[in-house]
Amino acid sequence: MIVPIELVHTQNITYDITIDVLPQLAFDTHVVIVTNPTVSGLHLNRLLAHISAPQLHVVTIPDGETYKTLETVESILNACFEHRLDRKSLLIAFGGGVIGDMTGFAASLYQRGIDFIQIPTTLLSQVDASVGGKTGVNTRYGKNLIGAFYQPKAVYIDPYFLHTLPSREFAAGVAEIVKMAVMFDASYFAFLEKADFRDEETLKEIIKKSVELKAWVVNQDEKEAGIRAVLNYGHTFGHVVENETQYETYLHGEAVAIGMVMANALAVELGLFSQDEARRVKALLQKASLPVEYVIKDVDDFYEHFFLDKKSARGSIKFILPQGLGHHTMLSGLDESMVKKVLHGFGVPQ
Amino acid sequence: MIVPIELVHTQNITYDITIDVLPQLAFDTHVVIVTNPTVSGLHLNRLLAHISAPQLHVVTIPDGETYKTLETVESILNACFEHRLDRKSLLIAFGGGVIGDMTGFAASLYQRGIDFIQIPTTLLSQVDASVGGKTGVNTRYGKNLIGAFYQPKAVYIDPYFLHTLPSREFAAGVAEIVKMAVMFDASYFAFLEKADFRDEETLKEIIKKSVELKAWVVNQDEKEAGIRAVLNYGHTFGHVVENETQYETYLHGEAVAIGMVMANALAVELGLFSQDEARRVKALLQKASLPVEYVIKDVDDFYEHFFLDKKSARGSIKFILPQGLGHHTMLSGLDESMVKKVLHGFGVPQ
Repeated sequence: MIVPIELVHTQNITYDITIDVLPQLAFDTHVVIVTNPTVSGLHLNRLLAHISAPQLHVVTIPDGETYKTLETVESILNACFEHRLDRKSLLIAFGGGVIGDMTGFAASLYQRGIDFIQIPTTLLSQVDASVGGKTGVNTRYGKNLIGAFYQPKAVYIDPYFLHTLPSREFAAGVAEIVKMAVMFDASYFAFLEKADFRDEETLKEIIKKSVELKAWVVNQDEKEAGIRAVLNYGHTFGHVVENETQYETYLHGEAVAIGMVMANALAVELGLFSQDEARRVKALLQKASLPVEYVIKDVDDFYEHFFLDKKSARGSIKFILPQGLGHHTMLSGLDESMVKKVLHGFGVPQ
Repeated sequence: MIVPIELVHTQNITYDITIDVLPQLAFDTHVVIVTNPTVSGLHLNRLLAHISAPQLHVVTIPDGETYKTLETVESILNACFEHRLDRKSLLIAFGGGVIGDMTGFAASLYQRGIDFIQIPTTLLSQVDASVGGKTGVNTRYGKNLIGAFYQPKAVYIDPYFLHTLPSREFAAGVAEIVKMAVMFDASYFAFLEKADFRDEETLKEIIKKSVELKAWVVNQDEKEAGIRAVLNYGHTFGHVVENETQYETYLHGEAVAIGMVMANALAVELGLFSQDEARRVKALLQKASLPVEYVIKDVDDFYEHFFLDKKSARGSIKFILPQGLGHHTMLSGLDESMVKKVLHGFGVPQ
């Protein structure tokens, strides 16, 4: 199945996301595949069997978020220069979100922009990173603080690659899927409650729906000024959780799952979300083996962390909350004591 | 006078270029001015007297093309992080092309893009770098090989700043002006032949016309696939001249002047340009105190250098040549021996 992505509002860009067994891909340009040792060890042979190009090189970069830096992007760029890529050349991102973000960023920078294709190998990158054109790296000041908006020429999502994905990483992808359903589509949420994520045809449908929803959001708001911020549901809290645990305890999607539970508690407190809806979201996350509990040791400190987030323009925190299943709202200027009351619900027992 | 720039073909971007005494500028955001010690020493006080903002910082980076590197851009970005700029913040590029290229690049990268304004202080950056959105840095593999296409929110061109510009740098700006006239407008060329560049009102008219021509080109072709390549007239030869002289002997505009004389010789050889037209271009460049002579010591070596240029996609050289004054053509696949014959015209006497 193919999902056409049309970014027509601020750019005249269209490309296809193919959700199916990886087809045979023939290119007439110099191609560089960017991957990491893990993905390469498991799947590079399969990829190479599906690609033909007059010149083909593989660049391997270290695995993991730690290496999502400008230095690693420079090493990709230097490899491109050494292989004498020109403006017609193509990069292929073969891996998860880190590979996709850095390869897209490198493609945007090389000679001010060459084409790139994404072949995401994790559920998270298949449903999330493959749409939206956000590329970039982390800095010592925070995550994704340097980057570019840059769209791929095509995305190929083959669920086959998920067979070797560790179950925690699979679950982290489910967190982003649940996020889309809670924010935008109650019937999709109900479908997920009953779905068997391990059935490949079901999974393809789920990926397709999630990609369509994200494409619909991104097309309305490519530069994240408005509705795209809704995709940060669970992230405002989740980022603090990640930060407090030095990015070591939780995968991003796991932190987002906890963050959604926290956001839901705030929504319940505000009367935007029913107890039962919050319970259903929590149950779906648990069904996917995602963490839903987190003990906040110091509520004041947790609250202060909100202001380090780059989305808090000029110091005001913006909360993305569900307003009934399938609907969302953005609130800022919330009373500090009320937010802290909700946070205390996750605090150590007094 | 104001030149409205409308980039409507691939992006919905419009901004104004104001060619006049710098107006009072009041911003309601955090502003960081990026400049170098030379410009700062001469003109920062004047700039500060014209700007108001709730928070204002000045970042000074070393002067010169040598420092046009990713490391310097990182230092600008780090200063932005230290000053806690957010997504609404603004960078102001205050200096020549190097400052403009790096500030625009940093603005494109910071949190995936914040606004920037250009206040160019050299004639070259006023007529050339202020339109087109090319930003970037040099690498050890070549010039401008890493960067982004990123447009400013506004450009303020105040000829006052040119009073302190060294005469060689002024002439280098004239070279780009002559380039535009030869490629696109014979009557503008005739006007330049009679013009007094040191008369401020005349100069404003000249800048305006040059900016309008460039905007017209860029609007047709924002990503340089077609007509924008015409702006490289004189550059294919000029880059080799710069490279052979280690970027030490000539300013970029001076090398372009020599490059135009060489391109014209090739155009004359091909019957595209008359001897008299070539003589008029040479005379105008000389009137502006630009170099028009260059001794090629090794024609074969000079020819090989063409292939190192990033514009030579897949190894074929594309020559941008005048086809009568005010008209242009692009030719590739020219016979090597014919090009070398023209180059021998600039070689050491046999």
